[in-house]
Amino acid sequence: MQDLDATAIRVRNGQLSVLDQTLLPHEERWLHCENVDELIAHIRALRVRGAPMIAIAAGLLAAYRAVLGDDKDIIAAHLQNLRESRPTAVNLMHAMDRLAQTLNSEEWRTKIVSEAIAIFNEDRALCDAIAANGATLFTANDKILTHCNTGSLATAGVGTAMGVIRRAHEDGKNISVWVSETRPLLQGGRLTAWECGKLGIPHHIITDSMAASLMAAGKVDKVILGADRIAANGDVANKIGTYSLAVLAKHHDIPFYVAAPHTTVDPNCPDAKAIPIEQRAAGEVRGAMGTTWAPADSPVYNPAFDVTPASLITAWVLDSCVFTQKEVDGGAFSSNSLPNRQLDA
Amino acid sequence: MQDLDATAIRVRNGQLSVLDQTLLPHEERWLHCENVDELIAHIRALRVRGAPMIAIAAGLLAAYRAVLGDDKDIIAAHLQNLRESRPTAVNLMHAMDRLAQTLNSEEWRTKIVSEAIAIFNEDRALCDAIAANGATLFTANDKILTHCNTGSLATAGVGTAMGVIRRAHEDGKNISVWVSETRPLLQGGRLTAWECGKLGIPHHIITDSMAASLMAAGKVDKVILGADRIAANGDVANKIGTYSLAVLAKHHDIPFYVAAPHTTVDPNCPDAKAIPIEQRAAGEVRGAMGTTWAPADSPVYNPAFDVTPASLITAWVLDSCVFTQKEVDGGAFSSNSLPNRQLDA
Repeated sequence: MQDLDATAIRVRNGQLSVLDQTLLPHEERWLHCENVDELIAHIRALRVRGAPMIAIAAGLLAAYRAVLGDDKDIIAAHLQNLRESRPTAVNLMHAMDRLAQTLNSEEWRTKIVSEAIAIFNEDRALCDAIAANGATLFTANDKILTHCNTGSLATAGVGTAMGVIRRAHEDGKNISVWVSETRPLLQGGRLTAWECGKLGIPHHIITDSMAASLMAAGKVDKVILGADRIAANGDVANKIGTYSLAVLAKHHDIPFYVAAPHTTVDPNCPDAKAIPIEQRAAGEVRGAMGTTWAPADSPVYNPAFDVTPASLITAWVLDSCVFTQKEVDGGAFSSNSLPNRQLDA
Repeated sequence: MQDLDATAIRVRNGQLSVLDQTLLPHEERWLHCENVDELIAHIRALRVRGAPMIAIAAGLLAAYRAVLGDDKDIIAAHLQNLRESRPTAVNLMHAMDRLAQTLNSEEWRTKIVSEAIAIFNEDRALCDAIAANGATLFTANDKILTHCNTGSLATAGVGTAMGVIRRAHEDGKNISVWVSETRPLLQGGRLTAWECGKLGIPHHIITDSMAASLMAAGKVDKVILGADRIAANGDVANKIGTYSLAVLAKHHDIPFYVAAPHTTVDPNCPDAKAIPIEQRAAGEVRGAMGTTWAPADSPVYNPAFDVTPASLITAWVLDSCVFTQKEVDGGAFSSNSLPNRQLDA
């Protein structure tokens, strides 16, 4: 397989590696990925994370197994197992379905490799297109609030919501960012803060509970974040805390944007009620980063995602264009009108 | 000084000790308090915390210094220094002012001791009265969300909001509690969860960002929490995250109650804008409990409190009665109508 290089995934000399995102920002440790069980464990532990990145990593791993000589039936099973490793994000499911189609071809072994590489390369292009579309929404001196991590760690490119922020920064708009830390797994406080620091983007970390009072004080001009799945009616499943921010933004009359590639849209999913929400282990809430502070036997409720109704979303920033509520209400995300899933080269 | 005993403060054989609340729930370590600088350090580090508890501890320490023989001028300086140890909660200021008045008496050395003990004992009675008033608001099977810690660790008695919850539980109402963990210092996930466990109250810990999706799912019937200061118009300063919960409760049409003793009301403070909000160290947000997960140089915004406008509060549960919005609008918390600060014995 050809060499590939992104912030959190790479192929070098035919060897697939992922950056362990649970150790960031303190340690940049690369993990070799040899087999499906290994990658699924990485995905479940969020060592590999981000809706687009999970899909890219799973694709490259399946391709890598094909290169190693696994039979077609085995590859089909790999794709199925990877597809089920996390239930909420839909990009993974779309990518696995796309690779599964290559198995119908006689040259499936080369086709699955080229298709996995195409998914990687397309994601970079999707990120650039999202960034270009979204940056038009920001004006000089905007104070932007974002949640979780949607940057170069979550994609093969500049990111989704974070790519938009980065573009606005690079365009010289003098923006600044409120990074909500995103409990329980702190993708904001660890990863987005790390990315902002590397890119020189002015930012402050806040706890998730501080967003409301910043909004009341007039210190938030816009909210932009990512999506793990966008239903046909525009409802969005995303990292827990997203819905909270959407309600707060509505109360304070602040624009609330969702940025994602079109591969995040699931036209087969009519609305939020049809999106399965992953429940995760109690230990994630009882502590963080190996430290436990809650009583060891305290019961915990730990959904990884929540759903935000389309009515609370000002606009959906996709690679094709920025969709308004009217366009989404009119069926922009239904199966008939969805843009072609494969980007024109 | 006579022996006194509460969950987080005690006097034994003339020696004042406080429970180190930063080590809970893992370790119950009692700290002797000998002098003012020591106690102020405990208060600033939140080893001693909770608006009523800070006032009680400061009062007993001042009395203890009087017993040890500090001069009147020195005691007056102690009271002033203690008064300024944290800027937002008003109970401390009220208590220090009350003790300062004893210095006008010839028998000030005995009077300051009896007054400090009176503040301790009154707080127990205030908690009981709040609990009795507030429990009438809860009905069978209520799912109650609370924030921070307002229980026996924050007071000399059963607590404020937590006292109400405890009374409803003891009344056999089969209530259950959502404990929001309360970043950054985790008074919910550590302290309220610990108290719920000890009292056998059914509960689940959630991250602060999960409250909204629970509300949307119909899983929260009522919100009740405490206050660090209540302005004359009913605005409330309380632990950061309170305002966020108030907006979310309003959006979901869920009653939002504030429980506090009348010593939390500041009739001299017209509204929220006049309440100083303490900003705390960046390290609290960059990590927790000795662990740091954010980049070491990431800028942080860390207000310890936020303010909730009276318009978002359904009722104020005080020791005297439950005040409605109409009563508060009508001046119930203005200086003329405020109940006598000293409870009838």
